[in-house]
Amino acid sequence: MNVNIVTVGDEILIGQIIDTNSAWIGQQLNLVGANVTAIHSVSDSVEGIRNALDTTLKQADVVLITGGLGPTKDDITKKTIADYFGAEMVFHDPTWERIQGMFKRWGRSTTPAHKDQCFMPSNATILFNKMGTAPGMWFEVDGKIIVSMPGVPYEMKYLMEFEVIPKLVEFFPGKPIAHRTILTVGEGESRIAARLENIEQTLPSFMKLAYLPNLGNVRLRLSAIAENGEDIETALDKVAQTIVDELPELIYGYGTTSLEEAVGNLLKDKSLTLSTAESCTGGFLAHKITKIPGCSVYYKGSVVAYAYEAKQNQLGVKKETLEKYGAVSEETVKEMVTGVLKTLNTDIGISISGIAGPGGGTPDKPVGTVWLAIANKDHVETLKLQIGKDRLRNIQYTAVKGLDLIRQFVLKHYSAEIPVLD
Amino acid sequence: MNVNIVTVGDEILIGQIIDTNSAWIGQQLNLVGANVTAIHSVSDSVEGIRNALDTTLKQADVVLITGGLGPTKDDITKKTIADYFGAEMVFHDPTWERIQGMFKRWGRSTTPAHKDQCFMPSNATILFNKMGTAPGMWFEVDGKIIVSMPGVPYEMKYLMEFEVIPKLVEFFPGKPIAHRTILTVGEGESRIAARLENIEQTLPSFMKLAYLPNLGNVRLRLSAIAENGEDIETALDKVAQTIVDELPELIYGYGTTSLEEAVGNLLKDKSLTLSTAESCTGGFLAHKITKIPGCSVYYKGSVVAYAYEAKQNQLGVKKETLEKYGAVSEETVKEMVTGVLKTLNTDIGISISGIAGPGGGTPDKPVGTVWLAIANKDHVETLKLQIGKDRLRNIQYTAVKGLDLIRQFVLKHYSAEIPVLD
Repeated sequence: MNVNIVTVGDEILIGQIIDTNSAWIGQQLNLVGANVTAIHSVSDSVEGIRNALDTTLKQADVVLITGGLGPTKDDITKKTIADYFGAEMVFHDPTWERIQGMFKRWGRSTTPAHKDQCFMPSNATILFNKMGTAPGMWFEVDGKIIVSMPGVPYEMKYLMEFEVIPKLVEFFPGKPIAHRTILTVGEGESRIAARLENIEQTLPSFMKLAYLPNLGNVRLRLSAIAENGEDIETALDKVAQTIVDELPELIYGYGTTSLEEAVGNLLKDKSLTLSTAESCTGGFLAHKITKIPGCSVYYKGSVVAYAYEAKQNQLGVKKETLEKYGAVSEETVKEMVTGVLKTLNTDIGISISGIAGPGGGTPDKPVGTVWLAIANKDHVETLKLQIGKDRLRNIQYTAVKGLDLIRQFVLKHYSAEIPVLD
Repeated sequence: MNVNIVTVGDEILIGQIIDTNSAWIGQQLNLVGANVTAIHSVSDSVEGIRNALDTTLKQADVVLITGGLGPTKDDITKKTIADYFGAEMVFHDPTWERIQGMFKRWGRSTTPAHKDQCFMPSNATILFNKMGTAPGMWFEVDGKIIVSMPGVPYEMKYLMEFEVIPKLVEFFPGKPIAHRTILTVGEGESRIAARLENIEQTLPSFMKLAYLPNLGNVRLRLSAIAENGEDIETALDKVAQTIVDELPELIYGYGTTSLEEAVGNLLKDKSLTLSTAESCTGGFLAHKITKIPGCSVYYKGSVVAYAYEAKQNQLGVKKETLEKYGAVSEETVKEMVTGVLKTLNTDIGISISGIAGPGGGTPDKPVGTVWLAIANKDHVETLKLQIGKDRLRNIQYTAVKGLDLIRQFVLKHYSAEIPVLD
């Protein structure tokens, strides 16, 4: 089935908010084999919505509309759709009862706007919205489906998941589609593509490989559509395994796992504890690690030693080292990591010091020079990066490199294994 | 002028990437008084692009197309536009010379794909793209403007800023438009709206006030369009000042300043130094502070004390305090802040301990319970938050509250003043 998405709202057109609903809907529909052929964002006006209906009903089997519903809106979307299809507005008792029940439970009273909200186009099937007051609406007109949903992301997501997608799949049974996503870190897109050239050239015609790079990570997504009843699950598993065999040292996980989650799992599996000592990343590595629920099992803490004196007092870096080699040097990160291992008493420690920019560069050590060290009681290893000029990007990229360093260190010294494809 | 934006790329339709280009373009056009009436995302195919041209040329004076250009693409966009307008493809020497020059400087050789890229529609004015190999193209057809740009954000932004917007403004001189953005922290949207009710009711007809809330911040944006030659600059200044006078304690800045930048400026102005001690925010407050270039003048570092023992060893929190009151308690954050003030030897310190979730809650202290303390050598003040269930949101919201606490502390104890409207 061909789907068009329409998002209604002036705030999207003037760039006040970014339309993330459409991307989410696109992903979900892709998983059930539906084909999103266009996304339209239009203004919260009769003309905008009518134009969108004119355009999309010509191009698509299904039109999904989000936004322009709810008690504080003028309900332009609902009335415009009703008028467009020549339908009347009728009072929908079950919705009114539901809204009254919600407000009673909250101990609050309804307003006249809530009652107005219960008028619905007579040709709509009302979709129950557990998450808010505005229900969804499902229209079937001339063999096409038009669905209107609120723009609030969690309300829209609830309606899509529990009402719209199940009904769509019944209406337009699609061809089976499946994906495998392989997560890599440590090499760029073009180098990985070179290593996978042979595999890419022999991909079955019903399969595609996409490279999705992001700051030191590259996600490899294999997709297959069973055009002629092919066994796509088996075929995907086979090709995915050849990719894994080609790039074993780069793979940290599959699907939607984050690198920080994968590193956390490695540490948990090996019952290891970790501490961090950060200068230029300023707590961002600690933040990535502590974003993961349950990290306190393996993570003890960080010393964010921004000032010279913090490096000395908190981590025991020698004054002479800082004076002789500078804060951004192999010698300093080695002393930082030794210091944090001791102070926070963990199995593994990692330290980072660099020049994030935009200021602070010298001819010897330009902006983007970063040193990292990782250690346990027996080994200390270091890594030098020479990256770009953008402060935030340098911080983010360095944190990814730091996580990869931990991953590699655990693989190497604690005989951990790369994750196996399910 | 009415503008339609078209973004070309399958990766948007399947939700692999979120279209941020359109939001940025919408913002920029809004600043020059242009009216974006629709945004369309279409597939990287002849049909997708032709459909988009059909639709947009009916609705808009200007069509801005991004994506579908570049050496690794099939250049479908360029050829489809040329065919649509019945134009030939001709070789563009200046572009070829420029690309050769770029590669020579990089010490790399060009590929045949780069030469192919230099064929351009004969009816296009070529827009110089300093940031990449694919130039922009400017078409004038039947009084309408069609512009094609690469989809890489920094290339598109360069072309928009230096080529497209200056030419558009010349082509369609619009009505003067102006904005004032007032940045607040510490109150929710609805409470602020209640305080500004009288001001809103007496706004001139050519002026609008928008509330843009985000995690504890609310940006207030006043916009005015001079429909009939009104002096909008003076009128905006006047209304903005009445808002500032109504909400003085909430205002941290204007325009695009971030809260962390505003706090940094306050500390710099008063020559104060800061340290942080974080538990549940796990380094995120430190990250926000160190995102700001030049923060090392006022920021010394953080102790991210995730484990009990880190709170004891690094910050000198007493074992009895942790046992008696727990890690998430007023007593513990007071000892943490005293500890970090001493260890990092700063004028001001702030500490945070809470239950970010999803686990770790108890009936007494449910998920979302957070304690903060702020201190200098003379004063210690504390704040308790009771927030939500979402881990990342709790971390982010707490960091904003922490920054606001620093701001308020400096205002109160160092007779700093709220920023003055320019």
